[in-house]
Amino acid sequence: MKNLKIDDNTESQKTLWTHKEFEDQLRNIGRVRYHDNCRFHHLLHSGMLNKGQVQAWSINRYYYQINISIKDSALMSRIKNPELRRKWIHRILDHDGRKDDEGGIERWYKLTDGLDLDRNYVKSTDGILPATRFAVDAYVTFVREKSILEGVTSSLTELFAPKIHKERISGMLENYSFINDETMAYFKKRVDQATDDADFVLNYALKNAVTRDQQEAVCNALKFKTDVLWVMQDALYQAYVYGSIPPGAYVPEDFNDRYIDNK
Amino acid sequence: MKNLKIDDNTESQKTLWTHKEFEDQLRNIGRVRYHDNCRFHHLLHSGMLNKGQVQAWSINRYYYQINISIKDSALMSRIKNPELRRKWIHRILDHDGRKDDEGGIERWYKLTDGLDLDRNYVKSTDGILPATRFAVDAYVTFVREKSILEGVTSSLTELFAPKIHKERISGMLENYSFINDETMAYFKKRVDQATDDADFVLNYALKNAVTRDQQEAVCNALKFKTDVLWVMQDALYQAYVYGSIPPGAYVPEDFNDRYIDNK
Repeated sequence: MKNLKIDDNTESQKTLWTHKEFEDQLRNIGRVRYHDNCRFHHLLHSGMLNKGQVQAWSINRYYYQINISIKDSALMSRIKNPELRRKWIHRILDHDGRKDDEGGIERWYKLTDGLDLDRNYVKSTDGILPATRFAVDAYVTFVREKSILEGVTSSLTELFAPKIHKERISGMLENYSFINDETMAYFKKRVDQATDDADFVLNYALKNAVTRDQQEAVCNALKFKTDVLWVMQDALYQAYVYGSIPPGAYVPEDFNDRYIDNK
Repeated sequence: MKNLKIDDNTESQKTLWTHKEFEDQLRNIGRVRYHDNCRFHHLLHSGMLNKGQVQAWSINRYYYQINISIKDSALMSRIKNPELRRKWIHRILDHDGRKDDEGGIERWYKLTDGLDLDRNYVKSTDGILPATRFAVDAYVTFVREKSILEGVTSSLTELFAPKIHKERISGMLENYSFINDETMAYFKKRVDQATDDADFVLNYALKNAVTRDQQEAVCNALKFKTDVLWVMQDALYQAYVYGSIPPGAYVPEDFNDRYIDNK
């Protein structure tokens, strides 16, 4: 039987990784598990989705967006070191903005507006997939309950984000008539933000994971976070590409049985 | 645009439902949202799955099983009334047994043993789907954080369980050479247990939801729980029927590319 290896913490493996080895481990996790491997992304970027499917993606991803500042506030509420809080707080400001009409969440509405979605409906989060809710809520809980090291380093997915954001911007602008520069404002801003954030978190990991157990805990935090993103993509694929929309979730106006392959 | 109804709490709807109306609401939620509507169940019961797919179902469902007593303990830790705790505790005893070799979790091992799964691997929960983990953890969190009324009545899915259990027992015994009376022991026991449990919870709901808001909260607790079960089934379908197994999840020995329809 495959998959039977339960405990790979054999003595020989228990030496501390060098920074190079540790970073390689992290980058390898991204290579295998980051959600740019999900099929939904390929369809999204290559213009293979219709407007209703892009709408569904945008309202589900919105639930993730609005929970980022909640997650970051939960993390900050547990950090005793003002210097680290001072570094971290800009993430909340990036997402929430300093006034009403700016910040990442506001920029997300540019996207949902451009997709002709009603803002009140988007804000209600009524139509999101249950899997989205469970995955995102798990992320908030993770940061609330795990160590500060794990909470901080669950953001290491940002190492892999700029590439996917660049692909998304060019692919979506090129391939969809209903997408323009304004609706892609969120991602344009995030390319630089995520690069800075990722550099900080990687350096934090290299510096603060000083035992092999801590290095492995960081790897597991990154794996956990890739699972969150992966589950969101897989659920979108199943609901809006295979056509198996669960009860209560958003049904696009242009949705029809041709997506349904097996009923 | 469809799905735009956000707030259905108009004044006219805010009168208390009669017991009959309330019970009809609950039964209707089950009719639409209970996971016997999921395609994976039909395949499971009708003999359309191979052994590896049934193995995958059994290890994922195992994660649900082992969290039931944790969920029930969390609920009991918040109940101030000894009479209700006295009613509830038998659920924990049903699952955990009074000694090593009995109880629902032990009976679950009869199933996984019969499917030739290594018990240590099953217990590790290493190979479960991330969506299973997020959904089940969400259930534990729900019971830990919501009102007692909502925590108790999230078990109302038991109203619909005996039917599915009976179908499962007869369908699986009939259709799979690797399933026998002993491996189905868990479900045989649950048919009667779930009927008694459901009667208690339904009566509890009818008696304790004394405002329309509380009645609606009970409906939402039941909807939430149907989402938990639905997400688990949908994730199994996507991974082991469509063949899109996420990184790190169990890969059955007999798994092959013929399940993969779109790579």
